Amino acid sequence: MVVYMNFTEKCEHLISEMKNDGRYRTFIELERLAGDFPTALRYKPDGSKEPVTVWCSNDYLGMGQHPAVLTAMHETLDQCGAGTGGTRNISGTNKQHVDLESELASLHHKESGLIFTSGWISNLAALGTLGHIFPDCVIFSDALNHNSMIEGIRRSGAEKYIFRHNDYAHLDELMKQVDPARPKIVAFESVYSMDGDIAPIKEICDVADKYNALTYLDEVHAVGLYGPHGGGIAERDGLSDRLTIIEGTLAKAFGVMGGYITGPKALIDVIRSLASSFIFSTSLPPYVAAGALAAIKHIRKHPEGREKQAYNVKILKKKMQDAGIPVLDTETHILPVIVGDAHLCRQLTDKLLDEYNIYVQPINYPTVPKGQERMRVTVTPYHTEDDMDLLINSFLKIDKNINWIPKK
Amino acid sequence: MVVYMNFTEKCEHLISEMKNDGRYRTFIELERLAGDFPTALRYKPDGSKEPVTVWCSNDYLGMGQHPAVLTAMHETLDQCGAGTGGTRNISGTNKQHVDLESELASLHHKESGLIFTSGWISNLAALGTLGHIFPDCVIFSDALNHNSMIEGIRRSGAEKYIFRHNDYAHLDELMKQVDPARPKIVAFESVYSMDGDIAPIKEICDVADKYNALTYLDEVHAVGLYGPHGGGIAERDGLSDRLTIIEGTLAKAFGVMGGYITGPKALIDVIRSLASSFIFSTSLPPYVAAGALAAIKHIRKHPEGREKQAYNVKILKKKMQDAGIPVLDTETHILPVIVGDAHLCRQLTDKLLDEYNIYVQPINYPTVPKGQERMRVTVTPYHTEDDMDLLINSFLKIDKNINWIPKK
Repeated sequence: MVVYMNFTEKCEHLISEMKNDGRYRTFIELERLAGDFPTALRYKPDGSKEPVTVWCSNDYLGMGQHPAVLTAMHETLDQCGAGTGGTRNISGTNKQHVDLESELASLHHKESGLIFTSGWISNLAALGTLGHIFPDCVIFSDALNHNSMIEGIRRSGAEKYIFRHNDYAHLDELMKQVDPARPKIVAFESVYSMDGDIAPIKEICDVADKYNALTYLDEVHAVGLYGPHGGGIAERDGLSDRLTIIEGTLAKAFGVMGGYITGPKALIDVIRSLASSFIFSTSLPPYVAAGALAAIKHIRKHPEGREKQAYNVKILKKKMQDAGIPVLDTETHILPVIVGDAHLCRQLTDKLLDEYNIYVQPINYPTVPKGQERMRVTVTPYHTEDDMDLLINSFLKIDKNINWIPKK
Repeated sequence: MVVYMNFTEKCEHLISEMKNDGRYRTFIELERLAGDFPTALRYKPDGSKEPVTVWCSNDYLGMGQHPAVLTAMHETLDQCGAGTGGTRNISGTNKQHVDLESELASLHHKESGLIFTSGWISNLAALGTLGHIFPDCVIFSDALNHNSMIEGIRRSGAEKYIFRHNDYAHLDELMKQVDPARPKIVAFESVYSMDGDIAPIKEICDVADKYNALTYLDEVHAVGLYGPHGGGIAERDGLSDRLTIIEGTLAKAFGVMGGYITGPKALIDVIRSLASSFIFSTSLPPYVAAGALAAIKHIRKHPEGREKQAYNVKILKKKMQDAGIPVLDTETHILPVIVGDAHLCRQLTDKLLDEYNIYVQPINYPTVPKGQERMRVTVTPYHTEDDMDLLINSFLKIDKNINWIPKK
């Protein structure tokens, strides 16, 4: 009898391959320090601890340490306890969920909101359901859409067309080829997290309208940061009503955890009723919902945080450009510093961490394509100019050693 | 030009259908009351509030209100803040995650542990990855496996065989037909949550061994409740080492939120490295991990809670049987009371809630097959005999009105 190779052996082989390719991920162990953000304690492999400056957090505004958020969470934890003990349908719907969903709907000028345990699930559930319930549906998806949208589209079973990144003329070309009678969804993001560029929302919606398509916008890297109330790029550009569904996260600028969608009542209700990833998951704890609600309410009223962040982004980018650091000149808060090689990228970030107590995570495949390995630098309102100078000086010092900056 | 029917219209139509079938879900809005569990406040549609006794929570031991859990969470919330601000790979790994994963591995006598934002994701990620990486893999799945396991198997792309529920002879028959050279996974649960029955773990593992299969056991409804340290049915029966991977939840007996897997180092590492639902999700907040860790440590040392729960289950079942309530005689803590009709089931639970302040959620399709609609009653260490008598008397009083109990 032929016996199948040992499962463990096969897994060990896969791990070796990843290590050889430079794409094996070693997680950096931290202890976040509320009140001292962006400083965190790093637990080193030898067991010792050292403070590091974090330059790669998606807690973009430091809301994770905001007193209004923490107070709401402490109170709700005392009042309601550690978890809900159920799915939304089976004893797991709490007042805090209902309040948060109504706040999110209002933030995005939509009829209804629905929260999920993560942004990843919100895209899986929403696209997976919508693409499935409309018979013979076709989904048009931006080439750089996030993994969770791709998984949702795959799960839906709908036919998929990929349009070139942000290329609405290409979208038009593709849509033109499809039977006008078929239901269509156009799915895209506002801010693309790895390149920091922004979608031409208006133009994409114009094309979508031409073909009677539903529009689905992922704003996870924009909510809390853009628009007069932190409603995202669609709010900033006065385009909220052009989008059928706006999806977002509670785990980045809002500082807590979870994901959500907002949109027309009937569509949200159908996703709520049919998405198995929603139906069969224990709901978010009440204190998480309460913390997110407090963060959103604060951000809607206080633009200071995002203004300071935008200012810091401008300063840091200028400093990087002046120093010859290969930073992409993005329109957003995301500052990608391209290295282009997995091993070099890791060597660089290892040195930053071990020698300079600066933590920037190397971004490698599959998060970005091979050959586009990078450091993705994010600056918050809490990073100082001294922090910035230290970061840039460390980049330059390491360059003397390992020559990672392309010379003109 | 033929224009596709309006998206909203289609959704409204689907909702009407669900309403007509009696499977449209209306969430009951609660406010959990830590310290008063199983009492919660119900927010009625008219805006008023009323205390209700919850009889359908999966916070099986009331750990969601345990002082050791809440204290750990308050401390960690103050220390580390409201969220991690990143995926596990990008600044989102915290000491609390690492400690919890090591505790979980130890609880299940495994080399490694890995936590996820939900149990649903843990099954999707683990089965989706394992079934995918072993070329030409075949997965044998119990007919009553949870939706999340089914989704994971589907996502893996592996060929699937369904064996009759708990029927290891049928499993053997199916496995015998498959080429011995192909890698095989047998996926099942220990406690099935809707019928409350237990898998013949030893016999299933014997069959799996015969064909060199990897064994995957979902213990979400058993962890914390069974075994000398709350390690689940596998621990109770001394079978932990027969399972390659044991999956569990932090959101039921442990009272918080999140899911996990434990198993051999190389397998867990591959799932960690390749599962997109893991890679692309913001990690669990540190205080959630700290709360779960405190709950597990408490439960490992203190069998009193689960002993009291088991005692209460016995008492309530006896009282139900004596009163002629159609409760399934399960071996576990789950007491399904079969109604068998969606509309009747909802009418009954509506009356319990509105007239008696007793909250039992009607369980309908797709959670159980049509015609098997039921109330799924769970009793905790905190329910009193008075609570039980009130529940049973309410069942009987309502029966005089709507005649829901089958008469002999």
